[in-house]
Amino acid sequence: MPKILIDETECKIRVPILLTAVSGKIRIKNRSIVNEYGTPVAVKKNAFTLSCYVEWQIGYDVVKKETEKLAESSLSETEFIGANGKIKALYELSEYIWYFYKWEIISKNDLENVIDYLNLVQNNNLIGNNSELQIDRSHPIAKNINGFDFEYTQVKYPLLIYKFNGYEIVTEIKITEKQYAVGTQPMLYLYFPVTELKAINNLIGRTAETKEVAYFEITESNIRVFLEMLKMFGILSNSHKQDISQIINTILA
Amino acid sequence: MPKILIDETECKIRVPILLTAVSGKIRIKNRSIVNEYGTPVAVKKNAFTLSCYVEWQIGYDVVKKETEKLAESSLSETEFIGANGKIKALYELSEYIWYFYKWEIISKNDLENVIDYLNLVQNNNLIGNNSELQIDRSHPIAKNINGFDFEYTQVKYPLLIYKFNGYEIVTEIKITEKQYAVGTQPMLYLYFPVTELKAINNLIGRTAETKEVAYFEITESNIRVFLEMLKMFGILSNSHKQDISQIINTILA
Repeated sequence: MPKILIDETECKIRVPILLTAVSGKIRIKNRSIVNEYGTPVAVKKNAFTLSCYVEWQIGYDVVKKETEKLAESSLSETEFIGANGKIKALYELSEYIWYFYKWEIISKNDLENVIDYLNLVQNNNLIGNNSELQIDRSHPIAKNINGFDFEYTQVKYPLLIYKFNGYEIVTEIKITEKQYAVGTQPMLYLYFPVTELKAINNLIGRTAETKEVAYFEITESNIRVFLEMLKMFGILSNSHKQDISQIINTILA
Repeated sequence: MPKILIDETECKIRVPILLTAVSGKIRIKNRSIVNEYGTPVAVKKNAFTLSCYVEWQIGYDVVKKETEKLAESSLSETEFIGANGKIKALYELSEYIWYFYKWEIISKNDLENVIDYLNLVQNNNLIGNNSELQIDRSHPIAKNINGFDFEYTQVKYPLLIYKFNGYEIVTEIKITEKQYAVGTQPMLYLYFPVTELKAINNLIGRTAETKEVAYFEITESNIRVFLEMLKMFGILSNSHKQDISQIINTILA
C-alpha cells in the first residue's frame, strides 16, 4: 500500500486505495442481493455500483525487520515491543491515532480511557477466549452422495458485526482456527461503501482506470470510529490487548 | 514439490514429502485429543507421535505456462485443455493413474467406468451444486460483548469425510466461498498417518532433520484409492467433472 497523505493544516489523513488490487488487504467487493456474501469485483471490466464496498483487513502495526512494509508507515521511527516479542512500528490504525493525538483532536484522556477499559476486561471475556464464540462442529451424519458413503458435518464459525452508529462504516470479526497453533484467531475487517471514496471522477457507473487510486479520508468527523476500532482490537485476544496497550503507551510517550 | 520417483520394475511410485515444509500443499499436522482439529506440527522441535498425520491438498493438473510447477511433473509433455480453457499437463493424481494404466494395473475398463459413472451424475447432484451442501448463515442476534453491541451470526460450512475401507487414508471435502466469483467451491484434502511414510529412520519419537524428505508409496495395493479419488474429484463441480473426463481421455489416448 502506498504511504498515507498527511494534511497538517486541515488535520486530515488521506488513505490511498488501489482500486484494481485483486489480492492484498484491501479489496473492492459487491454485496449480492440474494445473500449477504460479498464477491470481489473486476473493477476494470465492471462499473462501480451503489452496492460496491471496500473490504479492508486493517492493521495496527508493522514488524520493523520487514523493511518493505515498514516503508509504508509514515512513522517508521516509532517503536514498541509487540506481544510476540517483535520490535514494531506504528502503522495504519495506530498511525492515524498518532496524528490525531498530535493534532489534539484525540485527547490524552481519550487514550487513557481505552487503557482503563481494556484493564477492566477480564481475560475470559476476550473474544478469542469467550466460550460462546468457539468454532463448532456438528455431530457427523451418514450421507450418500452419488454412491459415496460420506460422513457429513457442518463447521460453524462465529461472525460478529458492528455498525458504527451514524457512519457508513461496519466492522466484522471473523473467528477462525489458528494456522500454526491450537485455538481460535479473531480477525477484524472494516467495510464502507465505495461512495465514501474520493476519486478523480465519481466512481458509480464507470470502471476503474489502470492502477487507479482513490482516497479514503480520515478527519475529525470520523476519527472516533477508529478510536473505537482500537478498543475493539484490544478485546480480540490476550496478545491484541497487550499490543494495543503498548501502542497507546507509545503514542502517549 | 520435488519430482516423484518411478520404479518401472516394481511398478511403484514414491512421492517425496518434505517434512519440514510449513506452507504449501502438504503439511504435517497433529490431531488433538480434545477436538477433531488438526494443528500444524513444528517437526524440527517436536517429535513425531502416532497422532501425527499428513494433510495433502492433492492436485490433478498443472497449467503448462506455469513452467516452475510444470517441471515437477514427470509427464510435462502430456496435454489437455482444462475446463477453464487453459492448456494443462497431467500432475499428481492424474500422473499416478497414467503410470498404473501404462503398467496395466489399472485397465481401460476401469477408466471407462469412471467416465460412465460421471456421465450418469446429473449436474444438480454435483457437490458444488447440491442444495443440501450450501453455506448457511444463521439469522443474526444481538450480543453485547464488553460493551459493544454486536450482531452475532454463525457461518456454517459443510464438510464431507470419506474413509477408504481397509486403508489408513481419508479424504475431506471442504466447501467454502469462491474467492473471485459468486458460489461455492469444494476443495479436496487427503489425510494419512505419518506411520504410512517411509523415512530413513522410523519417525515416531524423533524430530525431523533439516529439509528431511520421507516418501509415500503408491503401489498396486493402494492405487484403487487414487482411482476412487479421481471419481470423487469428478463430482465436485461442473469444471472438475469436465477436467477429469479430459484427463481420462488423455490417459486412454
